[in-house]
Amino acid sequence: MRTFINVEDIGDLGKALAEAREIKDDRFKFQALGKNKTLMMIFFNNSLRTRLSTQKAAMNLGMNVIVLDVNAGAWKLETERGVIMDGDKSEHLLEAIPVMGCYCDMIGVRSFAGLQDRDYDYAETVLNQFIKYSGRPVFAMETATVHPLQAFADLITIEEHKTKKRPKVVLSWAPHCRALPQAVPNSFAQWMNAADVDFVITHPEGYELDPKFTGSARIEYNQMKALEGADFVYAKNWSCPGVTNPADYGKILSRDMGWTIDAAHMAVTDHGKFMHCLPVRRGLIVTDDVIESPDSLVIPEAANREISASVVIKRMLESL
Amino acid sequence: MRTFINVEDIGDLGKALAEAREIKDDRFKFQALGKNKTLMMIFFNNSLRTRLSTQKAAMNLGMNVIVLDVNAGAWKLETERGVIMDGDKSEHLLEAIPVMGCYCDMIGVRSFAGLQDRDYDYAETVLNQFIKYSGRPVFAMETATVHPLQAFADLITIEEHKTKKRPKVVLSWAPHCRALPQAVPNSFAQWMNAADVDFVITHPEGYELDPKFTGSARIEYNQMKALEGADFVYAKNWSCPGVTNPADYGKILSRDMGWTIDAAHMAVTDHGKFMHCLPVRRGLIVTDDVIESPDSLVIPEAANREISASVVIKRMLESL
Amino acid sequence: MRTFINVEDIGDLGKALAEAREIKDDRFKFQALGKNKTLMMIFFNNSLRTRLSTQKAAMNLGMNVIVLDVNAGAWKLETERGVIMDGDKSEHLLEAIPVMGCYCDMIGVRSFAGLQDRDYDYAETVLNQFIKYSGRPVFAMETATVHPLQAFADLITIEEHKTKKRPKVVLSWAPHCRALPQAVPNSFAQWMNAADVDFVITHPEGYELDPKFTGSARIEYNQMKALEGADFVYAKNWSCPGVTNPADYGKILSRDMGWTIDAAHMAVTDHGKFMHCLPVRRGLIVTDDVIESPDSLVIPEAANREISASVVIKRMLESL
Repeated sequence: MRTFINVEDIGDLGKALAEAREIKDDRFKFQALGKNKTLMMIFFNNSLRTRLSTQKAAMNLGMNVIVLDVNAGAWKLETERGVIMDGDKSEHLLEAIPVMGCYCDMIGVRSFAGLQDRDYDYAETVLNQFIKYSGRPVFAMETATVHPLQAFADLITIEEHKTKKRPKVVLSWAPHCRALPQAVPNSFAQWMNAADVDFVITHPEGYELDPKFTGSARIEYNQMKALEGADFVYAKNWSCPGVTNPADYGKILSRDMGWTIDAAHMAVTDHGKFMHCLPVRRGLIVTDDVIESPDSLVIPEAANREISASVVIKRMLESL
Repeated sequence: MRTFINVEDIGDLGKALAEAREIKDDRFKFQALGKNKTLMMIFFNNSLRTRLSTQKAAMNLGMNVIVLDVNAGAWKLETERGVIMDGDKSEHLLEAIPVMGCYCDMIGVRSFAGLQDRDYDYAETVLNQFIKYSGRPVFAMETATVHPLQAFADLITIEEHKTKKRPKVVLSWAPHCRALPQAVPNSFAQWMNAADVDFVITHPEGYELDPKFTGSARIEYNQMKALEGADFVYAKNWSCPGVTNPADYGKILSRDMGWTIDAAHMAVTDHGKFMHCLPVRRGLIVTDDVIESPDSLVIPEAANREISASVVIKRMLESL
Repeated sequence: MRTFINVEDIGDLGKALAEAREIKDDRFKFQALGKNKTLMMIFFNNSLRTRLSTQKAAMNLGMNVIVLDVNAGAWKLETERGVIMDGDKSEHLLEAIPVMGCYCDMIGVRSFAGLQDRDYDYAETVLNQFIKYSGRPVFAMETATVHPLQAFADLITIEEHKTKKRPKVVLSWAPHCRALPQAVPNSFAQWMNAADVDFVITHPEGYELDPKFTGSARIEYNQMKALEGADFVYAKNWSCPGVTNPADYGKILSRDMGWTIDAAHMAVTDHGKFMHCLPVRRGLIVTDDVIESPDSLVIPEAANREISASVVIKRMLESL
């Protein structure tokens, strides 16, 4: 595996889930694989879970890890070509990327959507430069449009907690005070479409996700109707994906607090489990009582980030 | 050992000191203990010695170490329950703590007193949330009211340099330009009370430390009288602990430069050794000549931070 | 080897280059040397290549690595003696340095020139305090006046790519929007003088480097004439070294864009290779087409930073 961006990169999902179980049973089983190999984790944006779980996964696999916060302690990077670099950016990505590639065997990149320019974001400009110029296998640690380590961990969590062969999984938009990228819902939709679940997406009109990720997934604009009989409720805010109206890309179209997941919403599900990728804003996305209830899976979900990262890094180590 | 906060946590001091000597003789003796174990060091505040010495101690013991600066590169954390999180804090401690616990085997926490709310600080609100929600052994790397890794290192240092069976140890307040927490003097007092020393505390009136830590320790308001015949002079500034007047909590009550430890102060001691936990403001706490004299123990004291941390982490590894 | 600052520290260059080749053939060959040894990398300034390559080199050699960003997460340090420390600096270098030395076996220091006070910078005040007070071997990771890990990597790169026994190497000043230190050209000149190359320096008048580093190197003020027949073109900006006029120290004396290395400049060389230490400002130092051409060595040069650091750290480990 040379890249990990989309669900296709991981291949057969059943096999990937079996590998996840094997690693969860013995996290140090493949420690010899990573000897004298170095993972470089490059952060253009903040991180808690991704930073910690990916680092842990790589150490479990015997690797050395170098963490680079690009905006703290390194140089600011120019991403455009053909400019005279007389501003605050001391180095060009076109030099920085191959240089980073020199000192490691594998690269993880976090680079969020700017939400200013849909074409730039959805072209995955920064991620693709790493793929093109680093000379190393590259995996996404949340990029402009995808967060596959999260979606894979979500799938593992659903697999562990499902009580029916084909559970109903509902991705529900929820309100937020800031404009957020679509990376998490994009990847979640993509992975759920590939998994054996009954998948429904619900959000206010205008929040339609890019069909590149949602494919033929069912959209139900009535949130309560969507939640009926749900086994898993996956809450998440995202800003306007600009599918129907490109001019609205990155905007907040609704602040409707009626979409906040509370006990009344969970009541119409079939003993539904609550999921969220975290960090979560309590009082906006979800109420205290729902996230703290025994049916909340947010912590097991986060714990599975170590497992999804382990499978991905193991696959990349095997392909070196 | 599941927590390391107070002197009681370490148990018999003689045994702890013997263990410290054993580790100082061979720092790598217990390296097998930490194999495939991960320490997570979580900093809500700045650190030099604690950051470096604790990391070194964990590596000596064969552990992996993950360092997290919460205010740099991670998300800002909400600590209050029941709020609508529409401000600058993206994540709640109630999620963040169990998540951090997922990815490690042991946690060290640094979280200073805010000095605004005595009840909040002295309840050790942040530390206790880590203990309650992380599911991991937790040790204090200076919290709102204690700094036991420092006090233990101080005790090791006194043990190594004492020339009398029961030396006189004086904790002396000294002036400072900023309001500082009471964690260091609190722990020092607590540990000296438990140790076999003649312990005296001296400070201007109003600076009385919490009896929870000082117990029956002797207080002498005349600094020069307190220092007479001292074998060890432990200088430290602290702001008003608010014991006699809660409204003064966290305030600077005195800027009396007569309390700065200089040659005249050391002259009345019995060839007293100068101690300070560092960082120290020269010219305020102590003069250049005293801190640079052969009787200054500030560097050996700092070096023993690696030893005290090693004993604590070793004990926690043994209890996993 | 107890210090690595000047070319003399590495001893015989032929032997050093042979050692570099040996390590490049098998980067993990000397891994046993660093077991239970800790490198502390101390950054007073930003870093990308140095941070990553030195960390990688130390890990290749089996060491533990602690990275300390002094201005992020630690205390601000006072460097002057005899001051009352009532400002923003919480700790004095005179305590901080021996403390850092306590927790490691070897120290790398990055501390750039302030460009305000030539005497202070050229006395290497910060570096020399580390050498004097840390009790550990110390190597420069770019200090006020030198960057020997870069110069050694440059020499390795020239050795690998030269097609003549004694190639012509030209160090050319180029324009920049900010005032930069002289560390890189100083060290490059020093190392080229010691190597078996035909070395020429070219820059506008007033930019003469300190003879302490340039020795008897030839200076040619006509850039195009200097570049004639060059095998290697080493571009770099530096601010006024203040040799002829101390009052100009650290100033930008020229912004002449005619000095930017473009295709016309490279055309007069003998199929010259382009070199730069990076980070580089495109459009100021060099044009896009030159730095992206097959004759650009900037990436192999950066990759050799891991090799030069490996040789240096290996030598220091052997001398412990």
